[in-house]
Amino acid sequence: MNKITLLMHCNDQSGIIAAVSNFIAENNGNIIYIDQHVDREQNIFFMRLESEFETDVLDLEHLKNAFKSTLVKQFSMKWRIYTSEVQPKMALFVSKYDHCLYDILGRYKSGELNVHIPFILSNHLDLKPIADSFNIPFYHVPVTKDTKPEAEAKQLELLKEHKVNFIVLARYMQIISPKLISEYPNKIINIHHSFLPAFVGAKPYHSAYKRGVKIIGATSHYVTEDLDAGPIIEQDVARVSHTQSIDDLIAKGRDLEKIVLANAIKHHLNRKVMVFNNKTLIFY
Amino acid sequence: MNKITLLMHCNDQSGIIAAVSNFIAENNGNIIYIDQHVDREQNIFFMRLESEFETDVLDLEHLKNAFKSTLVKQFSMKWRIYTSEVQPKMALFVSKYDHCLYDILGRYKSGELNVHIPFILSNHLDLKPIADSFNIPFYHVPVTKDTKPEAEAKQLELLKEHKVNFIVLARYMQIISPKLISEYPNKIINIHHSFLPAFVGAKPYHSAYKRGVKIIGATSHYVTEDLDAGPIIEQDVARVSHTQSIDDLIAKGRDLEKIVLANAIKHHLNRKVMVFNNKTLIFY
Amino acid sequence: MNKITLLMHCNDQSGIIAAVSNFIAENNGNIIYIDQHVDREQNIFFMRLESEFETDVLDLEHLKNAFKSTLVKQFSMKWRIYTSEVQPKMALFVSKYDHCLYDILGRYKSGELNVHIPFILSNHLDLKPIADSFNIPFYHVPVTKDTKPEAEAKQLELLKEHKVNFIVLARYMQIISPKLISEYPNKIINIHHSFLPAFVGAKPYHSAYKRGVKIIGATSHYVTEDLDAGPIIEQDVARVSHTQSIDDLIAKGRDLEKIVLANAIKHHLNRKVMVFNNKTLIFY
Amino acid sequence: MNKITLLMHCNDQSGIIAAVSNFIAENNGNIIYIDQHVDREQNIFFMRLESEFETDVLDLEHLKNAFKSTLVKQFSMKWRIYTSEVQPKMALFVSKYDHCLYDILGRYKSGELNVHIPFILSNHLDLKPIADSFNIPFYHVPVTKDTKPEAEAKQLELLKEHKVNFIVLARYMQIISPKLISEYPNKIINIHHSFLPAFVGAKPYHSAYKRGVKIIGATSHYVTEDLDAGPIIEQDVARVSHTQSIDDLIAKGRDLEKIVLANAIKHHLNRKVMVFNNKTLIFY
Repeated sequence: MNKITLLMHCNDQSGIIAAVSNFIAENNGNIIYIDQHVDREQNIFFMRLESEFETDVLDLEHLKNAFKSTLVKQFSMKWRIYTSEVQPKMALFVSKYDHCLYDILGRYKSGELNVHIPFILSNHLDLKPIADSFNIPFYHVPVTKDTKPEAEAKQLELLKEHKVNFIVLARYMQIISPKLISEYPNKIINIHHSFLPAFVGAKPYHSAYKRGVKIIGATSHYVTEDLDAGPIIEQDVARVSHTQSIDDLIAKGRDLEKIVLANAIKHHLNRKVMVFNNKTLIFY
Repeated sequence: MNKITLLMHCNDQSGIIAAVSNFIAENNGNIIYIDQHVDREQNIFFMRLESEFETDVLDLEHLKNAFKSTLVKQFSMKWRIYTSEVQPKMALFVSKYDHCLYDILGRYKSGELNVHIPFILSNHLDLKPIADSFNIPFYHVPVTKDTKPEAEAKQLELLKEHKVNFIVLARYMQIISPKLISEYPNKIINIHHSFLPAFVGAKPYHSAYKRGVKIIGATSHYVTEDLDAGPIIEQDVARVSHTQSIDDLIAKGRDLEKIVLANAIKHHLNRKVMVFNNKTLIFY
Repeated sequence: MNKITLLMHCNDQSGIIAAVSNFIAENNGNIIYIDQHVDREQNIFFMRLESEFETDVLDLEHLKNAFKSTLVKQFSMKWRIYTSEVQPKMALFVSKYDHCLYDILGRYKSGELNVHIPFILSNHLDLKPIADSFNIPFYHVPVTKDTKPEAEAKQLELLKEHKVNFIVLARYMQIISPKLISEYPNKIINIHHSFLPAFVGAKPYHSAYKRGVKIIGATSHYVTEDLDAGPIIEQDVARVSHTQSIDDLIAKGRDLEKIVLANAIKHHLNRKVMVFNNKTLIFY
Repeated sequence: MNKITLLMHCNDQSGIIAAVSNFIAENNGNIIYIDQHVDREQNIFFMRLESEFETDVLDLEHLKNAFKSTLVKQFSMKWRIYTSEVQPKMALFVSKYDHCLYDILGRYKSGELNVHIPFILSNHLDLKPIADSFNIPFYHVPVTKDTKPEAEAKQLELLKEHKVNFIVLARYMQIISPKLISEYPNKIINIHHSFLPAFVGAKPYHSAYKRGVKIIGATSHYVTEDLDAGPIIEQDVARVSHTQSIDDLIAKGRDLEKIVLANAIKHHLNRKVMVFNNKTLIFY
């Protein structure tokens, strides 16, 4: 049994679902999941579909070519097909905070994430012992004003060497360079410790405390060149009160950050995310 | 422009989506919403689909017959087709509590609910002034041990006379008779003031207080012959603490009850609910 | 039995609680609720206290004078004492949206709010029928660029005539003048339809949709001269997804607005709010 | 600077707060936190108080004796005084599930929990590698029908040897014996994977799935002889839908269990919990 996941979008028009479901049926596939959405403002049709094929060996290349030369052409689709056989490679970038790192590695070791982590990279040495205790290679790539270009070159080299598919910034405290972003478009997942777009930038818990909000949040988003303004993948919030100090907010926020980042990683891994117009569609 | 909503289920098998989407396309319809679910335990395929037809006048009967004689037969479907043109009729049953009644009537007058309310029925006279101030007919049908059969007959008579499609028990404090339930299967919506299945029966806030729970809830479900055991449509919860008395729980619960019942009514009205095996599927 | 509520703050120092609890005991009162908070950054001590007195008639003036001439002096307190006997008067300002109005009036008629509503004021006539059906006086005070000063004079006149204690802006779509704000400092409660400080200003649901947030919110705050920047009393949020249009966000937001505004009103009515440094302390 | 935390309860009567705050003031203490609650049904007064003393060395024994011979006698108090100097010892009992273990150990290593973990005990060997990687002693105490008495004896021996103050059952899949419970009254914290009192006993996610609930939960409680019926410390919930299988519920529930258990541990550690009448008071 083989399974594919198809993500596609194109201008909205009649007959897309019929055409795609016929295509799957003609290729002896059985649709086990279909969900679609129409952006009425932009007139765009989006679809996510999972299909099983009963052949022993699925000729994925043949299927892709057939799809491309027929429906993709006919409807001018943007599309991607994934198979469940390939396990993605995820690099972790960290600095000094360890809570998201512990959380991700615990899930990784439990088998909760269908992913391979080839390495952890940090601009500091503090978290190396954690990487060691989980038996994951750790690279120390310090970043200073002067060494920034070399650091980025080193990062790119490691990412290519390990054939990394996507990057998770688990409280990595450095700005990602435009070059790295362009190499990994919508493939760098950040966790920001506020309910974006409130409290962009540094020290959001301090700002939240000062403003006297009754609810704090955390936001996971894809990294774009605009700071903290990329497509939002997942958000969550927690209630706070005047009795809580800034340190209490930070402590409470840690649990939010862990959960929100883990969920964003899972959505990305399970091919549930489409990005359009700096927003995400999450197909549950 | 005409719009239909199709709800269907049948044994899971290959090609259902392709067959249905072809059927719609052949009848010049355009699918604007499709969602499906497979119950892997029972091997049942469920689908909800909305389609627009560009004809001025849709021959609904012809469409239904065509669907019936082809796909329904082929796949042994259970199915229902609704059009947006018909406005359902909803009867409200109440006793003495007014919060859900005020909430529903406020939404009704605001135009939030695409429904007609032909009457409000109560076993008490207390809420008549509210019905009057909203200009809705009010029927007082007292229920005592001795008069129960006559009361039920009167209820059924009113429901038929007003061609009521479904009933909302907005904190109606009487057991519904099996006869009425069988006339309105999965068409009587109740609000229970606990997080079911915890605290079935009377005085759930008292039980919740006694057990010392940290969260209370409310549950809206279809009425079946088993008390508080029908298919759950919607639930919500709120955090409580030791500082809150039973009266505080009751007060906090009122807001839960209002929101949960209103959401259940909306799901039902928008044809988003399918019932199978004493559970609901809610297609968002 | 008489009950008072004391709210106070002063510079933090040793012995305040002992001194106040002694004062209450010496005056034959029994403390039934005490909660305190210290703002460590500003070094301010805050306390809320409820006390019962077993005398038939409490000489409140005498008690206040005794408190003033001893503890208030000794600790340089800012303080206020309320009795439960006096029912506050709340004016409602509305424009064209009716959901918050229906919600507040339903609670009012149910006896959920210990308050008197002397009148509803609007710059439009649309909601007059609702005021009529609930038997509450309705004043139409239109506001245009030219008539703004007269409109404000009329508002102030009505507020004084009816001895209004605080004002609730139940989706009132006009900027409140500095003069009115200064007459009712921390006594004008607004509901803003976003999770402040995100999406200040007009059309927050449109902005939320555009940004692609996964959670929307509502915020109730006291009105200050800075638009949407006053002390936050209450906030709540709801989860949304890409499937929801702007209209869906607006519909979902209505329920948030109703609950958040109602809770803010209750906190204010129950003397649970203290304001300091443009933030609130809410003593639950 | 020395800090104590006082927890007390007694029959409600006038003057308790004044008496206790005077006692603290006379002993040169400064109350930095006070919260109280009156159970009106049972007429019990509860208080939690934190006080700082400016002496270099606090003579705790003297303070306790003074308190005992005066106020405890006068009001017939049940009381306990804790100092922040003593770091409690917490034993972890686990079986085969690792998610709560990873979560607690991550927090422990991050310094989030002011506690010492002398050992991890399990009836299986599966999680030994995790204990090893975190450098915490691991004891394997298998439990079978025949060896149950010896296993319990071994457990008690280890607990005494390591002077354990309280026990956390991090998904430990064995019934705790009455003897162990009586040695650690309200000192054994369990995590149950449902929203109690719904779905007591084994396989709660299966039961939740079968009942078709729209929300699942987790509950942390003190262990008593009645299975899953001890005083509830903390609960939390998450929304689910018909699209989620039992395995999905289990996966989603893991995050709930982690957060709920961690919060219960923190409440217990920070002396925020009082137990009365099989319910908890949590002083935030």
